[in-house]
Amino acid sequence: MINKKYEQAIKLHKKYGGKLEVKSKVPLNNKQELSLAYTPGVAGVCEAIAQNKKLASEYTIKKNTVAIVSDGSAVLGLGNLGALASIPVMEGKAAIFKDFGGVDAFPICLETQDTEEIIKVVKQIAPVFGGINLEDISAPRCFEVEERLRKELDIPVMHDDQWGAATVTLAALINSLKLAKIKKENAKVVVSGVGAAGVATGRLLHAYGITNTIFCDSRGIINKKRIDLNKEKKELLKESTIKERTGTLADALIDVDVFIGLSKPGTLTAEMIQSMASKPIIFGLANPTPEIMPEEAHKAGAFVVATGRSDYPNQINNSLVFPNAFKAMLDYKIPQFKNEIFVKIAISLANSVKNLNKENIIPSMFDKKARLAVYKAVASLSKNSK
Amino acid sequence: MINKKYEQAIKLHKKYGGKLEVKSKVPLNNKQELSLAYTPGVAGVCEAIAQNKKLASEYTIKKNTVAIVSDGSAVLGLGNLGALASIPVMEGKAAIFKDFGGVDAFPICLETQDTEEIIKVVKQIAPVFGGINLEDISAPRCFEVEERLRKELDIPVMHDDQWGAATVTLAALINSLKLAKIKKENAKVVVSGVGAAGVATGRLLHAYGITNTIFCDSRGIINKKRIDLNKEKKELLKESTIKERTGTLADALIDVDVFIGLSKPGTLTAEMIQSMASKPIIFGLANPTPEIMPEEAHKAGAFVVATGRSDYPNQINNSLVFPNAFKAMLDYKIPQFKNEIFVKIAISLANSVKNLNKENIIPSMFDKKARLAVYKAVASLSKNSK
Repeated sequence: MINKKYEQAIKLHKKYGGKLEVKSKVPLNNKQELSLAYTPGVAGVCEAIAQNKKLASEYTIKKNTVAIVSDGSAVLGLGNLGALASIPVMEGKAAIFKDFGGVDAFPICLETQDTEEIIKVVKQIAPVFGGINLEDISAPRCFEVEERLRKELDIPVMHDDQWGAATVTLAALINSLKLAKIKKENAKVVVSGVGAAGVATGRLLHAYGITNTIFCDSRGIINKKRIDLNKEKKELLKESTIKERTGTLADALIDVDVFIGLSKPGTLTAEMIQSMASKPIIFGLANPTPEIMPEEAHKAGAFVVATGRSDYPNQINNSLVFPNAFKAMLDYKIPQFKNEIFVKIAISLANSVKNLNKENIIPSMFDKKARLAVYKAVASLSKNSK
Repeated sequence: MINKKYEQAIKLHKKYGGKLEVKSKVPLNNKQELSLAYTPGVAGVCEAIAQNKKLASEYTIKKNTVAIVSDGSAVLGLGNLGALASIPVMEGKAAIFKDFGGVDAFPICLETQDTEEIIKVVKQIAPVFGGINLEDISAPRCFEVEERLRKELDIPVMHDDQWGAATVTLAALINSLKLAKIKKENAKVVVSGVGAAGVATGRLLHAYGITNTIFCDSRGIINKKRIDLNKEKKELLKESTIKERTGTLADALIDVDVFIGLSKPGTLTAEMIQSMASKPIIFGLANPTPEIMPEEAHKAGAFVVATGRSDYPNQINNSLVFPNAFKAMLDYKIPQFKNEIFVKIAISLANSVKNLNKENIIPSMFDKKARLAVYKAVASLSKNSK
């Protein structure tokens, strides 16, 4: 069935020969119109910007355009396919940016996977863009690339594999805890997989006030005795209230309320769910095959189940966040993304769910009110907010 | 009056907030459509390209998309305004690419003016693009950037300030010589200004078979005794049949048939025109003010006058060339631009003029048949030409 879908997708891409087009918004039907959009009139616009660089964000596409930057090192769940093979994903994101957020976005797929070179090239091409959406760059390089670009550029930078996934996950968790009547202070959460999305999810949980957290990577529970931890993992451990637990994922899950899987298929078993607290909240977000299939999770006693898939209820879909988060950042000229912005978006998304129930914990990306909630959440953080 | 035009242009740019938008060509109205354009279906397209990289030119925007790359070092005639202030020009070109050639083009304005860094960054961002249009990069760096990128990339690269201007100039000259009944073997031509456009014009004149050429820069006639010549100027001198003439522009023009000005306002005087051969052909292409105003040139006895301006007859406008030249290069997958391609385009453009007369030596960019002539000239050089 997957292969059938692939066939249809290839047919579509062949038919259109790429999914994006770059069009003029201004008319160019005669010499008069050309003389304003191009020479000689355009010279006045260039000179105005040369005198006051801020005008580039008023008079050019910098006002509403985001670069989708990838090095092709972690394309979807497919691995390191390289720049050319990452283009179809970046085009898809650009299409979603426009259709769901009104943002013009353009794919920049890089012929380098070196951290310093990625940082340098993004800085060199930054003038045209009002924001940078990093995409499908593998961990741990993605952390430094994002951190450095946030410091060294004067436009918002966000690695969507981190923050998009983490924000929607937090929103879904907020609603799940409501249904289970568990206060955030008391919630115990295991995050399985401490790559890009796992680290960002941990950071947002902590920023939101869920600090009874346990993180598991391929070597088991992250704890003080481990000597193989990178900077990001050490930081998560430091922020958590649970520092002493050791062992495997199965050991981690005993008496815990929430499993958040950002790892791989088959990671979670029915027995593990049965060892959890009385109302197990199970998010299996590996794509396309989750850590445990929803049917099996429910059979094992799950209270709420969410996945990344569109063919089951409760799809955790980062497309809910990035188009309108960037749109509001651009419109309100908010200088940089911060954890607080994503927490605010998550709360707004959670609150935007009507008829909250176990099969409806998170809005669909086709829900216009939810998209507006994302936009307003970001806009409300601006001093210029209406 | 120029200032009035500038005001209108600024108003237009402010109103639209940038002239381009990036839109999806494929529908994204529901989960089914999203599952083909984006995950999970898109994974099949990525895998297909990972296995056969040539498919990127069939399944992605690489098929029809050109980067317009500038470092902002020579923006119009305004000089080194930098990356941000160059954006409005590059947007205008992108709009013309789409409206006049059906090519999707996107501005890449670089925060570096170092030759090696420009070459490196263009190579790093090349995967998404099917061609590179270099723009407003100052001489002599533009020569090395273009030469190296043509060698080191597998997509067509063209510096439009060189070849666009040179190609339309040659087309206009072919028709002017027809009207003056001068054979190309006998035509004597002075090129004033040996920057990007001057060098390329010289190269095309020679490739076409006009070799009685004299080149003048700010220090006068280029000749064998000069010890300050760069590589490009030496090469032009080597290809010319006239190597001994020395002195100023005024000395150069005595008994010559054609003046091609790619220099600056006021360079050419009525007296100089009077010293030329019996039917002086005067192209004053400095923008926006030509080397001599057309009224004055005619008064001094000019046979044919052309400028870069839209408010006089015979506008030499490079917008005639680049949209459809690139379109044909992309459609027929022609690997690289060569002098022969531009000569072929110039001949086709010259032949596309109906009712050839002294005030109609070159088609308008709004002439659809002329645009088709450019496309067909390039396509005819492909083995796959229909």
